[in-house]
Amino acid sequence: MHVSHLECPQCGAHYSHRQLAQTCPDCALPLLVRYDLAKIKKILSKADLAERSYNLWRYRELLPVENYDRIVTLGEVMTPLIPLQKLSAAAGIKKVYLKDEGMNPGGTFKSRGAAMGVTRAKELGVTELAMPTNGNAGAAWAIYCAKAGIQAHIVMPVSAPLITRNECAVAGASLSLVNGLISDAGKIVGRAVKRYGWMDASTLKEPYRIEGKKTMGLEIAEQLNWKLPDVIIYPTGGGVGIIGIYKALTELRQLGWIGEKLPRLVAVQASGCAPIVAAWQQQAKASQFWPDSSTVAFGINVPKALGDFLVLEAIYQTGGCAVAVTDQEILDSQSQLARTEGLFICPEGAATLAAALRLAAAGWIRPQDSVVLLNTGSGIKYPDTVRVELSVLQPDADI
Amino acid sequence: MHVSHLECPQCGAHYSHRQLAQTCPDCALPLLVRYDLAKIKKILSKADLAERSYNLWRYRELLPVENYDRIVTLGEVMTPLIPLQKLSAAAGIKKVYLKDEGMNPGGTFKSRGAAMGVTRAKELGVTELAMPTNGNAGAAWAIYCAKAGIQAHIVMPVSAPLITRNECAVAGASLSLVNGLISDAGKIVGRAVKRYGWMDASTLKEPYRIEGKKTMGLEIAEQLNWKLPDVIIYPTGGGVGIIGIYKALTELRQLGWIGEKLPRLVAVQASGCAPIVAAWQQQAKASQFWPDSSTVAFGINVPKALGDFLVLEAIYQTGGCAVAVTDQEILDSQSQLARTEGLFICPEGAATLAAALRLAAAGWIRPQDSVVLLNTGSGIKYPDTVRVELSVLQPDADI
Repeated sequence: MHVSHLECPQCGAHYSHRQLAQTCPDCALPLLVRYDLAKIKKILSKADLAERSYNLWRYRELLPVENYDRIVTLGEVMTPLIPLQKLSAAAGIKKVYLKDEGMNPGGTFKSRGAAMGVTRAKELGVTELAMPTNGNAGAAWAIYCAKAGIQAHIVMPVSAPLITRNECAVAGASLSLVNGLISDAGKIVGRAVKRYGWMDASTLKEPYRIEGKKTMGLEIAEQLNWKLPDVIIYPTGGGVGIIGIYKALTELRQLGWIGEKLPRLVAVQASGCAPIVAAWQQQAKASQFWPDSSTVAFGINVPKALGDFLVLEAIYQTGGCAVAVTDQEILDSQSQLARTEGLFICPEGAATLAAALRLAAAGWIRPQDSVVLLNTGSGIKYPDTVRVELSVLQPDADI
Repeated sequence: MHVSHLECPQCGAHYSHRQLAQTCPDCALPLLVRYDLAKIKKILSKADLAERSYNLWRYRELLPVENYDRIVTLGEVMTPLIPLQKLSAAAGIKKVYLKDEGMNPGGTFKSRGAAMGVTRAKELGVTELAMPTNGNAGAAWAIYCAKAGIQAHIVMPVSAPLITRNECAVAGASLSLVNGLISDAGKIVGRAVKRYGWMDASTLKEPYRIEGKKTMGLEIAEQLNWKLPDVIIYPTGGGVGIIGIYKALTELRQLGWIGEKLPRLVAVQASGCAPIVAAWQQQAKASQFWPDSSTVAFGINVPKALGDFLVLEAIYQTGGCAVAVTDQEILDSQSQLARTEGLFICPEGAATLAAALRLAAAGWIRPQDSVVLLNTGSGIKYPDTVRVELSVLQPDADI
């Protein structure tokens, strides 16, 4: 393993990765995993990847894993980067791709964070952990914990999608429903981990899930043969994905595997919950809590993200932007993707197409650009976003 | 393309693959695609596969595709073959793997048949097609047809899973619901294709989806480095999957890529709908219609399959067997897989574990055997198979 230490992105303090670490005790902010990149640069070349397993574990030198014989895996794959030929033409953009994270175990990108977080928790001797969730993250951690033999305690709002509740339960997690928001679930988890000594696996309170999400950026770079796109659009709730992709790109740049110029990173949010957009419009370093938030894209209904300052840094450092789209634009984009490209994706993912169309119309995305849309999950996890009204035929009827 | 012709498995008549063909006009039975295997043997080696795309299209010489620049693809992956370490130990079997077809686009193995069937339909100039379905096949064909620009007409029972209805609708298929069974849907389709001249894409009424399903067998062989398992267990409704796997194995044998001895192929059915099991018990060549069929595993609720004789041939020729399991065994196996291996799979897939446990207890599977379970779909498409009863906490409550 080539991890050198954990680092607080605010005060710069170093912490050991050899023991269970959560946030920086002084700043109460998430820790980032740092590697001996100079050494990795000497021992690893792009060509070394060719013969490796076709999944996130192929980037082993850049991951926080000690023993690859004992990783916690559910058969992850390198998710496809799908060219959207018809939509590119319709939008007047040279090349639009969709990175389809719906192809992960459990149908969402949350599996990457869970695979890495649970693998490292297991290596550090964790036997029990707890986390609050809006649904998909809890489901992902529940299935990986089942594989690892770690007892998971999941707390979610009673309004979270039923399918994610079922996933937690069937995997043997201890599941609690709360009559409140994810922030209420977080407070219950906060009290429980203190009382019982469980690991706190809340978003950005453990350093390793960012490393899992980072592999989305590594895959995009490799799948495009290390020639990066001009723009990457990411649906942003807690923001771990965009933080991870930015971290991947800066590490690849330090390795000299890509050029100096990074893709412009775009955070898309729903207009009913757009704290990052509001902060970016004011060029602020952090966001304000967004009251009474609401959107059909449940997974990005996050009124204040712990890692907001890291999301904004990724945007500023790459010349990106943040954009809000309406629920109607999201649903229209979801339908358009399914009808023209055959891709039934989640509303959060569909928000990236809505954003691309807005940004192309505004000239921010240029006709010669190449654009990657990051779809975070499969549409089959969101049955309620499609409504079908049909009369029922009798068997002797004709169509 | 190395296809030589289409062949009726009963009368042996040859038909051209250059035009749209359905069943054998004399026997009304499905046609099989035949290749010039002698030629393929000369031009293709196992090593050639190493540098190819990591999905079913890598076996291009063995597929009915003329132009690989124009395939209809939604980002298929080589689905994982996952070792079940804990379950192998618990079952007293040396090695048990699960081939996870839930990782396909749309979450089921139906995508393989649709990818190949729609690609070939497009090559043959089809612009409109129709099919009856119990849900997942229709959903898969709907999304691939959307990508191809082919208008799909799907007819399904009103009792088919809601999520598959939504998938068809969002992809722009023309969807009809019938107050009856899939056989009623089939009759409506039969009348419509005659009236309108649409292609009939009903199961085994077009020859190409078998070729898509065949790739499951090719992948299993390659993933095990061409050392085949002793047993492959397949949940059997229409049976196209087991027919395809058997076809893959016989073609690999003719290429000399595997030995003479094939894995024993096992068809598992639900005890509420077990026509193949009944036929096998009598060593019959075909099955009888199973009246009043019923099972929680909706996808294998097929009382009489058009390809039953091919399924039975695959079992007889490999020294396999057919076994029925109860709905309770299916649900218990589904839960066991999720709790011990972190895999939330569909009830049809879970039936394969139930069968393995029965066959191991009976000594038919031996302790030294290696066994592949074929999971046909993701559990997230089947929310109703898990029930969660929980009280709801108030925000100030503790766990």
